[in-house]
Amino acid sequence: MPYEIAMGPRERKSPFFDRAVADGATHMTIYNQMYMPVSYGDSAAEYKRLLEGVSMWDVASQRQVEITGPDAERLVRYLTPRDLKDCPIGRGKYVPICDHDGRLLNDPVLLRLEEQKFWLSIADSDILLWARAIAKEGGYDVVVHEPDVSPLAIQGPKATDVVADLFGDWVRDLKYFWFKETELDGIPLVVARSGWSKQGGYELYLCDGTRGSTLWDKVKEAGAPYGMGPGAPNYIERLESGLLSFGADTLPDSSPFEVGFEKMIHLDREDDFIGKQALTRIAEEGPKRKLVGIVFGGDPVTFNEHPWVARVDGHIAGAIRSVCYSPRRQSNIGLALLETRFTELGTKLEFKGDGRSFKGEVVPQPLVKPGTPIPE
Amino acid sequence: MPYEIAMGPRERKSPFFDRAVADGATHMTIYNQMYMPVSYGDSAAEYKRLLEGVSMWDVASQRQVEITGPDAERLVRYLTPRDLKDCPIGRGKYVPICDHDGRLLNDPVLLRLEEQKFWLSIADSDILLWARAIAKEGGYDVVVHEPDVSPLAIQGPKATDVVADLFGDWVRDLKYFWFKETELDGIPLVVARSGWSKQGGYELYLCDGTRGSTLWDKVKEAGAPYGMGPGAPNYIERLESGLLSFGADTLPDSSPFEVGFEKMIHLDREDDFIGKQALTRIAEEGPKRKLVGIVFGGDPVTFNEHPWVARVDGHIAGAIRSVCYSPRRQSNIGLALLETRFTELGTKLEFKGDGRSFKGEVVPQPLVKPGTPIPE
Repeated sequence: MPYEIAMGPRERKSPFFDRAVADGATHMTIYNQMYMPVSYGDSAAEYKRLLEGVSMWDVASQRQVEITGPDAERLVRYLTPRDLKDCPIGRGKYVPICDHDGRLLNDPVLLRLEEQKFWLSIADSDILLWARAIAKEGGYDVVVHEPDVSPLAIQGPKATDVVADLFGDWVRDLKYFWFKETELDGIPLVVARSGWSKQGGYELYLCDGTRGSTLWDKVKEAGAPYGMGPGAPNYIERLESGLLSFGADTLPDSSPFEVGFEKMIHLDREDDFIGKQALTRIAEEGPKRKLVGIVFGGDPVTFNEHPWVARVDGHIAGAIRSVCYSPRRQSNIGLALLETRFTELGTKLEFKGDGRSFKGEVVPQPLVKPGTPIPE
Repeated sequence: MPYEIAMGPRERKSPFFDRAVADGATHMTIYNQMYMPVSYGDSAAEYKRLLEGVSMWDVASQRQVEITGPDAERLVRYLTPRDLKDCPIGRGKYVPICDHDGRLLNDPVLLRLEEQKFWLSIADSDILLWARAIAKEGGYDVVVHEPDVSPLAIQGPKATDVVADLFGDWVRDLKYFWFKETELDGIPLVVARSGWSKQGGYELYLCDGTRGSTLWDKVKEAGAPYGMGPGAPNYIERLESGLLSFGADTLPDSSPFEVGFEKMIHLDREDDFIGKQALTRIAEEGPKRKLVGIVFGGDPVTFNEHPWVARVDGHIAGAIRSVCYSPRRQSNIGLALLETRFTELGTKLEFKGDGRSFKGEVVPQPLVKPGTPIPE
């Protein structure tokens, strides 16, 4: 049963909105108070394009929280449990943000643009408010604001060729998560080797919202020889690859330990950071829940509208958070957030969804190994 | 050009979701990371029902931020520029929330449930994160969390009869914005005389999310003799009545002075509150922009997908934020956020939208006087 999304001025439009619509966007969501296209009406083609070709995505709703000023680095270090170590200019890092009770608030990518200028490229929660409150109440000498910066992602195995044709061969040598400030025919942007897929690619952080259509057109033209088409963060590929979807896979009180972020929680850091005490306690006690990969039988599912209750031997074990049919694993797959005692590999699960009953099993992640081709 | 809203587990569903869908919801938005029905497909009938009869709305996405603990009152007073004075239990207050630079972050209703237990019933921004950050960094002895509380609004001139039939005649004596904790056949809830319309009515704050369908059914049954039907926060009525839509009418850096909240900004308070210095400065200098009512000619407009640039004598004056055709004023109306020098009554505006050109004028608010009937 489809519902129409209400259009109006409360939600912002991306600088790429008009072009995404012209290219046939059919489904939208709202992410960080901004419309985001999530499908162009042919899910199979979008998946194939991402896996075997190249795809361009309007991900402007991945907003930036910019932190500048003499205390910028000190504030950034306080905001995340991850030890940034040297944190050079030009290198991005995936940095969980937690609150004082150790709850995961967001999982942005941090970009250091200058000695004292950082962006947090955020998932769907108001980290702008969080960072501002922390900065002001803590007396940090910084400015925290949302700059006019909107990412356009180019993802897939042929993304490198497209981006090299646009910017030059130097992009081939850019290491994963590194980035460079540059321009394209006068359009200011940041080119980063990153993106929410495991198929390789880049994100062009457009730094002038008035140039959205121009940038879209240039990228589209460069992609044409490679068969590029429009796409969006891909629901199937991300489940196959084990990329976290904050809010879909997590609960409001999820700790970073539930979702496999242990290696980014540096409790032995000498300096203080938000949530240090609480996270230390959770690490000692062990997380109550864990996010695990599952496979399950039955006819192919498309997606779940909401989480499904999962049972083990009749006991409620937690929730199936996200499911899909994986063309590459040739099975239904999903992510489940379960009480830790039910998360051992091989645990048998039972659950119902969309009026059907399913039997599944906890399996290792990623659910599909990188490089696995789509079967003929 | 309609787009389908993407359904999935990232956004939460309201406890009333299934019933709203069964009753024919056609259009959805996402508000506070929750799906919210905004239309049942017959805009004229929904408007008429609200103005002349009674309407029930799933407004569960108006989430609560609960603040409890020994320092709860002290924190609440620090969070808003409004002087709460005695602030008795059982009385709600509309309380702007500003940041340290005087930007409006939200415009919730505050409910004091106990001596040290408050709810902020919020518009669409993560005040939960804001309040938590302030509380923790400021060392307040409080717990800030989101309780399982979901409002169901009953609005319109016949709302009192419906709610009296459900709860008893005491609801007729409840003063505007006052509330009472009670239950309905064992369903725990708070009955408040409030709601986002000027047609009178109540909000039932459901305090047990598992009882959403049961409450919906009971309310629907009680409303049947009065011709009640489903509805949603009404775009036309709110423009006619001059109710602020946070995010639609405001910009990220809007101060409360831009939107007519002067009377709620108590700069002479002896105690400190967030934004006091900045708001004092803005009050002295005068706000750069003001939100004003406008009327304009031409064939009836339905709504605007995004703000429209407004010009005065060829100069860019600001933006038309929200427009509609008012059946009661029998004219196109709207709200415009304009540079203060362009906000005098009678100022002539020119603007374009949806490929059409319009001429309008700044007029007094409210755009339609309370009690004005719909013409035959």
